[in-house]
Amino acid sequence: MITAVERVRAAYARNAQVDRPEVWIGLRPQEDAEADAAAVDAKAAAGERLPLAGTVFAVKGNIDVAGLPTTAGCPSYAYRPEADAPAVARLKAAGAVVLGTTNLDQFATGLVGTRSPYGPVRNAVDPAYVSGGSSSGSAVSVALGIADFALGTDTAGSGRVPAAFNGIVGLKPTRGLVPTEGVVPACASLDCVTVFARTLPEAERALSFMATPAGRELPPLEQRAPGPWRIAVPEPEQLGEMDKGWAEAFQAAATRLADAGAELLPVDLTPFTEAAAMLYEGAFVAERYAAVGAFVDGHAGSTDLDPTVAGIISRARDIPAHRLYADREKLVSLRTRALASLGDADALLLPTAPGHPTLAEVTADPLSTNARLGRFTNSTNLFDLAAVAVPAGEVNGLPFGVMLIGPAFTDERLTHIAGLLTAPPLRLAVVGAHLSGQPLNGQLLSLGGRLVRTTTTAPAYRLYALNTVPPKPGLVRAGEGGAAIEAEVWQLPADGLGALVGALPRPMALGSVELADGTFVTGFLCEPEALAGARDITSFGGWRAALSALPGADRDWALRHPTG
Amino acid sequence: MITAVERVRAAYARNAQVDRPEVWIGLRPQEDAEADAAAVDAKAAAGERLPLAGTVFAVKGNIDVAGLPTTAGCPSYAYRPEADAPAVARLKAAGAVVLGTTNLDQFATGLVGTRSPYGPVRNAVDPAYVSGGSSSGSAVSVALGIADFALGTDTAGSGRVPAAFNGIVGLKPTRGLVPTEGVVPACASLDCVTVFARTLPEAERALSFMATPAGRELPPLEQRAPGPWRIAVPEPEQLGEMDKGWAEAFQAAATRLADAGAELLPVDLTPFTEAAAMLYEGAFVAERYAAVGAFVDGHAGSTDLDPTVAGIISRARDIPAHRLYADREKLVSLRTRALASLGDADALLLPTAPGHPTLAEVTADPLSTNARLGRFTNSTNLFDLAAVAVPAGEVNGLPFGVMLIGPAFTDERLTHIAGLLTAPPLRLAVVGAHLSGQPLNGQLLSLGGRLVRTTTTAPAYRLYALNTVPPKPGLVRAGEGGAAIEAEVWQLPADGLGALVGALPRPMALGSVELADGTFVTGFLCEPEALAGARDITSFGGWRAALSALPGADRDWALRHPTG
Repeated sequence: MITAVERVRAAYARNAQVDRPEVWIGLRPQEDAEADAAAVDAKAAAGERLPLAGTVFAVKGNIDVAGLPTTAGCPSYAYRPEADAPAVARLKAAGAVVLGTTNLDQFATGLVGTRSPYGPVRNAVDPAYVSGGSSSGSAVSVALGIADFALGTDTAGSGRVPAAFNGIVGLKPTRGLVPTEGVVPACASLDCVTVFARTLPEAERALSFMATPAGRELPPLEQRAPGPWRIAVPEPEQLGEMDKGWAEAFQAAATRLADAGAELLPVDLTPFTEAAAMLYEGAFVAERYAAVGAFVDGHAGSTDLDPTVAGIISRARDIPAHRLYADREKLVSLRTRALASLGDADALLLPTAPGHPTLAEVTADPLSTNARLGRFTNSTNLFDLAAVAVPAGEVNGLPFGVMLIGPAFTDERLTHIAGLLTAPPLRLAVVGAHLSGQPLNGQLLSLGGRLVRTTTTAPAYRLYALNTVPPKPGLVRAGEGGAAIEAEVWQLPADGLGALVGALPRPMALGSVELADGTFVTGFLCEPEALAGARDITSFGGWRAALSALPGADRDWALRHPTG
Repeated sequence: MITAVERVRAAYARNAQVDRPEVWIGLRPQEDAEADAAAVDAKAAAGERLPLAGTVFAVKGNIDVAGLPTTAGCPSYAYRPEADAPAVARLKAAGAVVLGTTNLDQFATGLVGTRSPYGPVRNAVDPAYVSGGSSSGSAVSVALGIADFALGTDTAGSGRVPAAFNGIVGLKPTRGLVPTEGVVPACASLDCVTVFARTLPEAERALSFMATPAGRELPPLEQRAPGPWRIAVPEPEQLGEMDKGWAEAFQAAATRLADAGAELLPVDLTPFTEAAAMLYEGAFVAERYAAVGAFVDGHAGSTDLDPTVAGIISRARDIPAHRLYADREKLVSLRTRALASLGDADALLLPTAPGHPTLAEVTADPLSTNARLGRFTNSTNLFDLAAVAVPAGEVNGLPFGVMLIGPAFTDERLTHIAGLLTAPPLRLAVVGAHLSGQPLNGQLLSLGGRLVRTTTTAPAYRLYALNTVPPKPGLVRAGEGGAAIEAEVWQLPADGLGALVGALPRPMALGSVELADGTFVTGFLCEPEALAGARDITSFGGWRAALSALPGADRDWALRHPTG
């Protein structure tokens, strides 16, 4: 594997190439990151165990990194921390190298990723769309492959909405599992440090190093009642209005869990959405004023302040404390209703957001576009729940994402269940030795394959018995000179298909094969070189027919030699 | 997906094809299984939710299936149960169809799979080797792709040793999690019903339906201290003698867990191996006499009895009860030492067995070949631990397997950790648009790819700019007329590689590409048809060099048209 120094160089090269300067507030000079990486390489060479050596990460601009200013997205608020936040320090101790601090919605107040004097962060997939926030730069740095993983924070959904919008994973751990020391508070009692990565195992691995180590007393966990996964899925009408195609994409995710054996349970989403509305409309926003209100008031009118964020925080100054008492009481009651509605469900499946606005839409209406985005995420921390946000396909070419939300300290289980969503099974057409009853069919079975149907290719292929020992089938697209060849379609787990291609011997290849119904699936092909000396057996209509038509004892020989 | 009836037909066809009659004691008439399947299809068509519809399973011959004799591997012991064992009934209720009952080491007494008047069960991969037992037929029915999953039992390792020998997954749940009603007892206080499948998700899914549903009080679970997975791995010398290559294969599995971020911890294996020896050498074997001793004594000399099994059980008759008291006391002390040695480890990693004997070796020495096999498995149920057995590569062309063993009720976690072992990452050579900095490189990144190194192909390839829009690179093996082409080697998660091939557009293909150092890795190729009208750019030495040598504005056009 490449060294830490090589990884850092590749990250800076990638960063230059993608040309998204707004991702960063404090990108470190490359030589500084390389020096850290060289130290990691030296320690690893000396035998020190550094499990994260060779990885690079980005840190949201409201989390302390020694040597870089902590801005929280506001230049005049910036301070130079003496030490790394514990979450950062633990990752560095495991060998990961910090690339820099990332852009965010100012004071982590927003879900759009545009509320920053450092510029709006454009979406990784389509720059006309918002990145989502508030952990905007962190999410995009991962989605674009600059960083291997990145730290965010999540109060109302800031560690999940940008994961969904950029097609990556966001883990929002149980409150308190990762220390929030060294983090500029948004709502101190709700804030969580989160992690973004492109795959679940990478995110889980990074989180494992950030979590509070032994010593802290954790409450014992009630065991789940045995049985298939129980997933609470709200009825479509409870989800409210969503972008075109999003309700269907959400249903598809639910169906995938059911196909994997999960039991889908009804749930009343009302207490969740009512609590969600309280996060900004109620008295809880006063906690943001408690954190940075004096600073905001003292810099009224400064161009350093995002006017939308400043307005939200300033307006919270006059919320009377008795409203907070009332809201707390209401929240307790909503939480009781919410947990009762979840019953013994292992997780609640929700779209991560109801839709994905463009930059222009947010500019036109900064408050209500933002408020809409928190419909499904806002209540999670208020209810003290854990959440995992994962990609779940695409809608109109843009990422679509869902969340699994569950009780505190079920983070590990939520990740395990989410794994059922992230690698959907794939289909494979076979035409030769992998057909049912043929010698290599056991390979498909052992990789978890299941027969879906028997069909033929489109009438556009020729089938050869290659001049190999034993003869292998060679399927070649021939356009108009082709015929329909007998085929079976199998379903394989994604890792099974990967293992199959990884073990494929020359001259076999896998590509896209057209079937009789005009659809394309992955199928076996062969290298052009293999056709030299091959026998064209297209006229038999398939591999099995050719085998049974040819003389048994000399079958291998006959397959490899034209009858002349 | 195919119907339940189609799945049953495929299973019987596969069974006929593999020609392993010894797998079954009570294979049901195909029409009976088809009738059950038709009923499942009808219910599913009527809208009933049957998550296991379309799956077929086999049941070890010591577990009750209504309508079939329960033999426990002894014809004269057979009885006709009135009802399915609860584990079987629950799977049927979820839509799975029983194929029949399978062969086993008689009275589940053995780890070899040869101790049966129904014949020794041959290994699925190499019939000269034992299948392992006692759940021999169940494991082989799954490994050969007849059944989707199968039930076994495990007292000393019977649900794990055959998984290892046949390259499949075996889940040995926490004692009591799956009811043992309707199971012929081996050691009633230790017996567990287990499940075999070819992949972890399939095994876990089947187990979820078998486990005791809500209502039973489960003890609360202590939370694990946060941090990376902590895996206890014994030093090589504590493992004792093993078959050639097995110690290295075990080390490779441990390294793979470390590479995935796990912390490897030392452990003292002595209490485990001392307890393992007690299972047959101590007083606990008297529990087997309590279960079937009167029957065995009453049929002394019958050809229905396996002489080795009968000898083990009969000899237990005269064990005095005071020895059982003494052994119990010793076991409590060993368990205390064992758990102390595990400390806060999440799991103990062990080879599932120390080696794999041939049928001939077992015939020559039936007792000591068998006793050796339980070295690592025997103590698990004595200590009330959970275990997951998974394939971990091959040694000399035969499957090699390891176990993750952990505290009671951590079954779910053990499965999650085991997932890190079952789909090792794969390597991929790229030569065109997937190179670092090229337009499709982001695909590799988003699938979790990491650059391993930069190299060239062997000097045996030609590179074409295909006549596509935009031009795609076409790598073609040309033998002696070829050149070395610039390449990058990336590492991808197996499911990422599967997703990549699943999304591959025509005319691209993935096959095996030879690198400069003579090794072969998966790489991008193209269909032969695509070479028509392609421009040979081999002389540039690579895709990037060709791009930079060609005029910018007309680059696409120039790539697709020879300069003449």
